[in-house]
Amino acid sequence: MTQGDTRAQGETQAKQQTPGRVWAHVGQAFTDPGYDVLVLGAGRMGTACALYLRQLAPHLKLLLLDEGGLPNEEGATILAPGVWSALDLPPQRQPEARWVRAQLETAFGDVSFQARPLLHLGDEGEEDAAALLALWPELEGVADPAELPRARLPRARVDTEAATFRPGAVALAAAQQAIRLGADLMLNARARLVPGGACVERLTVTNTHEVVTHETHTLRAGLVVVAMGANGPHAAEHDLGVHTTHARAYRQLPRLNVPTSGATPTLRARGLTLRPQNGGFTLVPPIHHRDPHGYVPGGGHLTGVPTGLRRETLEDLVAAMPALPALGTEALESGRSISDIPGAWLALPGGGADGLPLHEQVTGGVYLLLGGPQADTLGLSVAYDLAATLAGVTGRPWDKA
Amino acid sequence: MTQGDTRAQGETQAKQQTPGRVWAHVGQAFTDPGYDVLVLGAGRMGTACALYLRQLAPHLKLLLLDEGGLPNEEGATILAPGVWSALDLPPQRQPEARWVRAQLETAFGDVSFQARPLLHLGDEGEEDAAALLALWPELEGVADPAELPRARLPRARVDTEAATFRPGAVALAAAQQAIRLGADLMLNARARLVPGGACVERLTVTNTHEVVTHETHTLRAGLVVVAMGANGPHAAEHDLGVHTTHARAYRQLPRLNVPTSGATPTLRARGLTLRPQNGGFTLVPPIHHRDPHGYVPGGGHLTGVPTGLRRETLEDLVAAMPALPALGTEALESGRSISDIPGAWLALPGGGADGLPLHEQVTGGVYLLLGGPQADTLGLSVAYDLAATLAGVTGRPWDKA
Repeated sequence: MTQGDTRAQGETQAKQQTPGRVWAHVGQAFTDPGYDVLVLGAGRMGTACALYLRQLAPHLKLLLLDEGGLPNEEGATILAPGVWSALDLPPQRQPEARWVRAQLETAFGDVSFQARPLLHLGDEGEEDAAALLALWPELEGVADPAELPRARLPRARVDTEAATFRPGAVALAAAQQAIRLGADLMLNARARLVPGGACVERLTVTNTHEVVTHETHTLRAGLVVVAMGANGPHAAEHDLGVHTTHARAYRQLPRLNVPTSGATPTLRARGLTLRPQNGGFTLVPPIHHRDPHGYVPGGGHLTGVPTGLRRETLEDLVAAMPALPALGTEALESGRSISDIPGAWLALPGGGADGLPLHEQVTGGVYLLLGGPQADTLGLSVAYDLAATLAGVTGRPWDKA
Repeated sequence: MTQGDTRAQGETQAKQQTPGRVWAHVGQAFTDPGYDVLVLGAGRMGTACALYLRQLAPHLKLLLLDEGGLPNEEGATILAPGVWSALDLPPQRQPEARWVRAQLETAFGDVSFQARPLLHLGDEGEEDAAALLALWPELEGVADPAELPRARLPRARVDTEAATFRPGAVALAAAQQAIRLGADLMLNARARLVPGGACVERLTVTNTHEVVTHETHTLRAGLVVVAMGANGPHAAEHDLGVHTTHARAYRQLPRLNVPTSGATPTLRARGLTLRPQNGGFTLVPPIHHRDPHGYVPGGGHLTGVPTGLRRETLEDLVAAMPALPALGTEALESGRSISDIPGAWLALPGGGADGLPLHEQVTGGVYLLLGGPQADTLGLSVAYDLAATLAGVTGRPWDKA
């Protein structure tokens, strides 16, 4: 226990029994009861951190806030692919990833968790790609075995431990569990970091669909966790003047309407992931690098034809087409403008495309918590690690193994 | 000789003696005399290619066009750093680079060519960085020897063959020589590729500073060289429907007002080049990756302060500040808006930051010629190679050595 105010432990531990309060809209009056921890952002990282803080440091009174709903409709969590795979993780992160997998499977109720192999097509691997694909008849229309060698994808690696799940459901369940353990939650509340806490605007929508501030509260807290996804580094810098090197990228997830079932494996080729979902595939394009500051996502043209896919994603799909001819058919929903294709800003921890989830103290009492491209596999454990660090707990559950 | 029309050789060879014509503005009437080659773009790549085509294939009647002046004020040539160095080139490109150096030194008159060593600071190299920097007193205010180890720049490599020059002067001289050898030149002419040639709009400016099309000509030619820099790949795709994987990046070149002389070496640290120029340094930031389609360059904020430098360049400068403390002083002209800092779009041949200059046939008779980040060192030879290829000439001057 490194932080927290001095109120009597007996008083706060009693609160552990009582579920927390929820302020979903401005009609519910709010009076600041005094918090020890503010968790800004109720996506998958913030909700998990809030939950683990309630478990590990129940004496710290905690408020979880989000600018939108739970999870935020514009955040990265609701669109996250939900593909757990430790195939390309460094060895030292494997135990942790396996702990995350067990949590996803058992700790959050029904999150559509499904063990589902991941086939990684490439130029190396223990399996012959064409022979492996032939095991799943439904993949026949997706991949073309005859073209795999030309596309330099003749071999395959299989992650038999891979799984899929719904990250939005995990965030929702984590928030509900945190509330049950005494966390308070405020939705539709925009937070700005101020020294020693946050300035919170409670938002409402007018008859003319304009978002306006209903009331403002300045909340003091010894600990602030900034779990605002791609917006987190900007908030730390803009509000506190702390320069970070983290970056962000805008990722679109188009649909490929080729029939899939619960037994269809996840495919990965040329960095592109085909995630079976809702009877088809959700395409998860690779992230090559950050997007520059000021970039506004827009639909690209391919040989003159406007689409809703950004140009860089179009190029990735074109590169994968020889091996995955379904990408070149009408089964691909490429849209006509950017709003036709679901997409979200992803944090890039460390600024690169391959950054793993992380937390870091940006200034006294303020911690940045970032998920990013690997949050499906390591997000929960990094959220746990921050909560344990703040609670002064040594040892991590994945160290036991 | 692979292309060209069938008009009598005697007729065209007579023209070799006569200088070409120049259409600088729409007041000069133009009648299409019939061309064999159109070179679109009079930057460093297009002018060099035009010159070498006149030398190697004088029977091909050639028109060089540019949308602006010579060189174009908005192009990459006029802002190119003009630093020749073969330090990081692969061995097989070294003879070619040395030929380029000799050409720059002797073939284009006064282009401010100056042998000037390049000091590459890093974590390896045969020299001690601090000891080396001490040889040039004027570098004392730029680099901090005490901070070099902390910035992981304790060692140095020296390119004693490096040189600096003015790329804009090379382009101008190449165009003038090409004209002397019979090339025609049309400025203020916007070209659009059409099958078998180009549609050319001659531009003029109204009293209200609006650019308007004065007249349009459709020029037929068996050969078209697209040397439009960062716009070339887009033109090939937009006009001809040919998809390429080349990309572009917006590079700014801010000034660092620290005194330099003709004897000051070029410095390179953390990918940032400090090029002595006009009594100070021109900073040439590293290119990490392409900019996405639709990106509009804008000034970034650093911990709340608006500047004219894009955010990514600011981060590069911040990273280099410990070793090069002058970057953190008022000697850096960081501006207040993007228009304060000179910048241009650079082609990225092959789509990556490390692409070397190249040419490629995009469709029958149409060739794309791209310079990009290494055009100072290999641009002339790649332009020569395209001209020789089109002329059916085997053997290259750099193969002799």
